[in-house]
Formats: sequence, C-alpha cells, structure tokens
Amino acid sequence: MDQRLEALGEFGLIGLIRERIRQRSPGMRLGIGDDAAILESRSGCDLLVTTDMLLEDVHFKRTWGCFHELGRKTLAVNLSDIAAMGGHPHHAFLGLGLPVRGISLAEVEAFVAGLEEEADAAGVTLAGGDTCASQSGLVLCVTLLGSVPAGQAICRSGAKPGNGVWVTGGLGGSAAGLLALERGLRPRSPWPDATPRPSWLKSTEEAVIQSAIGAHLTPIPRLAAGQALRGYATAMIDLSDGLASDAGHLCTESGVGVCIQVGRVPLHPGTRVAARWTGRDELDLALRGGEDYELLFTTAGDPRPVLHAALPGVAVTRIGEVLDGPPVPTLEGVDGRREVLAGGFDHLRPAT
Amino acid sequence: MDQRLEALGEFGLIGLIRERIRQRSPGMRLGIGDDAAILESRSGCDLLVTTDMLLEDVHFKRTWGCFHELGRKTLAVNLSDIAAMGGHPHHAFLGLGLPVRGISLAEVEAFVAGLEEEADAAGVTLAGGDTCASQSGLVLCVTLLGSVPAGQAICRSGAKPGNGVWVTGGLGGSAAGLLALERGLRPRSPWPDATPRPSWLKSTEEAVIQSAIGAHLTPIPRLAAGQALRGYATAMIDLSDGLASDAGHLCTESGVGVCIQVGRVPLHPGTRVAARWTGRDELDLALRGGEDYELLFTTAGDPRPVLHAALPGVAVTRIGEVLDGPPVPTLEGVDGRREVLAGGFDHLRPAT
Repeated sequence: MDQRLEALGEFGLIGLIRERIRQRSPGMRLGIGDDAAILESRSGCDLLVTTDMLLEDVHFKRTWGCFHELGRKTLAVNLSDIAAMGGHPHHAFLGLGLPVRGISLAEVEAFVAGLEEEADAAGVTLAGGDTCASQSGLVLCVTLLGSVPAGQAICRSGAKPGNGVWVTGGLGGSAAGLLALERGLRPRSPWPDATPRPSWLKSTEEAVIQSAIGAHLTPIPRLAAGQALRGYATAMIDLSDGLASDAGHLCTESGVGVCIQVGRVPLHPGTRVAARWTGRDELDLALRGGEDYELLFTTAGDPRPVLHAALPGVAVTRIGEVLDGPPVPTLEGVDGRREVLAGGFDHLRPAT
Repeated sequence: MDQRLEALGEFGLIGLIRERIRQRSPGMRLGIGDDAAILESRSGCDLLVTTDMLLEDVHFKRTWGCFHELGRKTLAVNLSDIAAMGGHPHHAFLGLGLPVRGISLAEVEAFVAGLEEEADAAGVTLAGGDTCASQSGLVLCVTLLGSVPAGQAICRSGAKPGNGVWVTGGLGGSAAGLLALERGLRPRSPWPDATPRPSWLKSTEEAVIQSAIGAHLTPIPRLAAGQALRGYATAMIDLSDGLASDAGHLCTESGVGVCIQVGRVPLHPGTRVAARWTGRDELDLALRGGEDYELLFTTAGDPRPVLHAALPGVAVTRIGEVLDGPPVPTLEGVDGRREVLAGGFDHLRPAT
C-alpha cells in the first residue's frame, strides 16, 4: 500500500468512494456512512442492507481452529449492524473463498454449522452466495438484509446536544480475548493439569479470560436491545472499530461533540487481566481495542427501563453526554480536564 | 483442501450448504441454486439479490494492472446474474479487501472509477460496503439488489421438453482473452512496432484478440436482453462457469435433458486464434472456458424478434433443444452421435 493510501486511511478511502459515487436509483433513504443502507420498500417497511468481511490473518487466524465460532461470528458482525439500526434481520448471503491448501471438509462443515446456529438464533435464512477457491487465505463476506418500520431506523446522525451517551455491556473484552488467543488459550479449554501453568495465567482468572475469548470469537449481537430503542434512541452505532473511533463516526454524522467521562467507561472483567499481561492501559483496550459489538447510543432520557426486558443481566451505562461543539469525541479525566479522544483501529494504517 | 472437499467440488459444497440451512424467514420465493435469490416485497415487485466475489490470482492477476477494467467487471458479473433473472439492478454493496503491500491510491482510484462507470451504465447506486486490509491479496465481493415484476423472474427451473435452447453472442472469447493476457498482451495496446513480433501473434489477428481481451476484462451484462425475455423465456442462466457446466445447472433445476448440436455452438472469433496458440480444441474453449457472461435460455418459439431491439448487432443462436430425459446436457456431433457433455470449471477441483 503506498503512503498516500496509508495517509488516507480506511475512513478517508470510504470518504473518497462516497464522493466519487453518484446516487442514481430512487428509493435510497441512506447510503454509505451508516451501519447499514436504508432502501424504501413501499410496504410500510424500509429495507436495511449491510456487508461485512472477515479475512484470514486480519480478523482471525485459521490456526486457532475455531471454525464453528468463526461461522457464528461471520454472521454476528452483520447482525450487529442491523441491531445498530434497530432492525430485524431476515436474509443473509455468503461469499466464501476457500483456501486451496490446508482446509478440510470437517472444518468447512463446522463453519457452516456455526453460521446455521447463529442464523437460527436470529431467525435469519441463508438465501444465497458465492463459493470459490482462494489462492491465499479464507475469505468470508456476508451481506445481510433486514427490515425496520418505515422511517424508524436509528441512524448515526440524530444525536442532539444534551442527550446522554450510553453503552451496553462492558468494553475491552474482545481485545482481551484476542490477546488470550494469541497466547495460545482456546475456547472452553481450561489449562491442562498435566502441563505447568505459565506465571501469567492465574487459575482464579481463567473464567474471566474464557468469557473474554467468548466476547472475541462469538460476540452477541444486541438485536432485541436495538429494536427496543426504536423511537427512543436519537442516534446509534455498534462498536466494531472501538469506542474512540465509533464515537467519532457518530459525532461526524450528527454534527455534534460527545464528552465521555473516563471513570464511567464500563470494562469487561477480562480487560484488566489482559492489560496486566501486556503492560497496556486497560482504558486504552476498552476505548481502542475494537470488536466488542456493543451498542453506543444517545437518548434524551434514561433508556434503562426500555432496555430492561431486552438485555437481562447486561449493564447499560451512561458514559457521557452530547455537546454543542466541534464534531469530535472528547475524554474527560477524573480531574475534569478534557482531551480529544483519538481514534482506534484503522485497517489501512499500520499500527503505531 | 482435503480430498473429501476436492471430491465434493464447488457444486457439491453448495449442495451441502443448501441441505444444512433451513429456511426460516417468510417471503423467500427462491433461495440458493439460481442466479439470484428472489424475495417477495409486497409492492408488485420481487426483490432479487446476488453475490459474486473476484479474488486475486483466482479471477484476475493484479500484475495485469487493469484496475479500471477490474472495477467494471466486479460489478458486471453481478449485473449478469440480475440479467439472467430478467431483472432491473438498482443497489450495489462492495466488500473491498485491500492488500497491505503493492497497491497504490491511483490503482484504487482507477478501480473505483471503473465501478462507477459500470454502475452509471446500468443505473445502479453503490449504497454501502465494507473496506479492510487484506493479507490475502485483493478481495472484491459485490452484492447486487435488483427488482422484477412480482412472479416474473426467469428461473433456471422452467425449461420444458420441446423448447429451443438459445444463446446470445459468441462463446470462448473470455477464455481466449485470458490466454492473451497470460501471454503478456494488454487491452488497447497494439504490439509496439519497435519490438520484434512473436511468431504466434499475427498482425491480422490483433483486432480479434483485443476483442477477446475485452470479453474477458469487461464483459457486457445482457440486461436489456434479459428483461426483454420476461414472459417469453421459460428458463435462463448466465454463462459464468461455461456452457457445459451452466447447461448442467439448468438441466438439474428444470429436471430435463438438453441436447446441444456441435455445429451450432457460436464461437467468438478470438477462440480460434487462442486454440491455435495452445493446441486446445476451439470447441472445448467455447464449452468449458467460462466467464463469457452471455445468456443461455429456453423458449417455446423463436426469440429473435423479441430480442432484436435489446441486442443490436449481437447474434442470438439456437444451439439445441430441451429433451424429456435424464437431467444432464448432451452434445450431438455432426455424425448425429450423442455423448454426455461433461462439466467445465469447478473452483474446488484441481484442473485436469
């Protein structure tokens, strides 16, 4: 990738594509730049469409061997986008590039079974796709269709100054789970008694780490919560790139600022453990780790009563508020000082 | 890929996925197994959805440098699927995996410009997508939505014994163009006067070879023809895997046989040239080369008057007829002897 492309970054490139492409078809309410596109469908419902890719050695390692989980996640990351619009998913389409070397039928079957399990849980039908060989890694691309009552999709663009900023669940768990996978831990596998335990793996923390691995491999799309927030949330986005980046997208699209208070950001319990392993700040993992697939949204009132039935046992936390200011997120420290909250992961920029 | 997966092949794997997946959503008229899925949309139209991937070193070489053409083709192969249902395309979604090494902003811009040009010609809006880095080469996955008057999509399943079997255009051109690209020829580039001409490249044949390169890099989706055949063709498929394979799909889905007469298969003029280069049979290139993106369809009567306006200057040829027999295509030689027409390219099987 050349330097101009790196400098542009993923979101710059999306902006460039957005600029170059003209809207020709009637019936498009919303195109590039939200969790899903919104198409009018004239039957009291709008059609939602989203596409997400998972690529080997970028989003997952084939050597982890977690093909069932990969099948679930391939659909889940798309379900999360429909959730973030307040929608109901219905039909999925799978682009499947199978590496010509090193993949077995049993692994492909485990992948399909995982996809089917996730589809079953969400009431989604796999309605088509494309299968081909890949000369490099495993390529997974799902396009998911969903629907929402006409005009009621929750976009990134509706946040108003004075709104509260809320998040579901705890953050940083997915990043912690990824670090655990990179250290050789696997889902549902306690450290074997016969093998000397490494010093970094405390037995009392294994349950928490397993939960973080689960958060990374099989994130739970917040569909019921997203649907419950229709008519209530003013703006919503799912946390795929990390709170810092995704709050930035919400600010840009809404034309507002957002102030997040450090002490209020809810951490997944695994985040602390992984931070200790790596010497990285736990807040940094929570803000920039990405792939938590929780919902970030803004409301005028307290959304917890509305969400009670949809998210049993899951925390819903007010982490800050929407400001009438420049469209960037800021972070307010415990001392009350504010700084701009710099972005998280960008696919096209090398990690710093 | 293990032997069981190779033995299953691409179409066996699609069959396996089709078996494992249950249909849960109401409103699906047709799922896996046609050119596009058909979803009811209750407004007098059915929604068509299709997904096609292009992967580096499988579908194209990045070293060819033809990024503008690649942008056009990425959309065109999906447009061809909507054409084969008799539909009108409207919204496209792009999954774009950009290799971390060796691609420039100028190349990405050329790709986007090509995509935009093809979208413009077809009245399609790029409404969303996903962009990420790829460790696996350039990954392109388009999902295309289209519509068709309710109940009028032309499926693979409607061919009736006694119908004629017809094809648009000439076949084998794409395979010939691919062979030319592999020999170092490039689009719109006549052999330079200053460089000694290789013996295989006759100057009188350069125009024909350029036309074959065009057939490979920028196939023309037969949208107007597909639409004109609504209410007239009984079954239709686009030629992506090659006439032998695709006639097989039509037979399977319609539960009929098809007999194709050798002498009637229309050849692209480049096919003969490429066959001479490689010592390969020109008919084999036309039957199994793939990627011609012409339409193969069946009708009770002569479709040429119906297609006259939609395909100016393009041949429409009757190549055989539908039989009440086992659901496999057969090839009838000039001596009247018939043999089973064995399939073309299968992504998951090594070339023989």
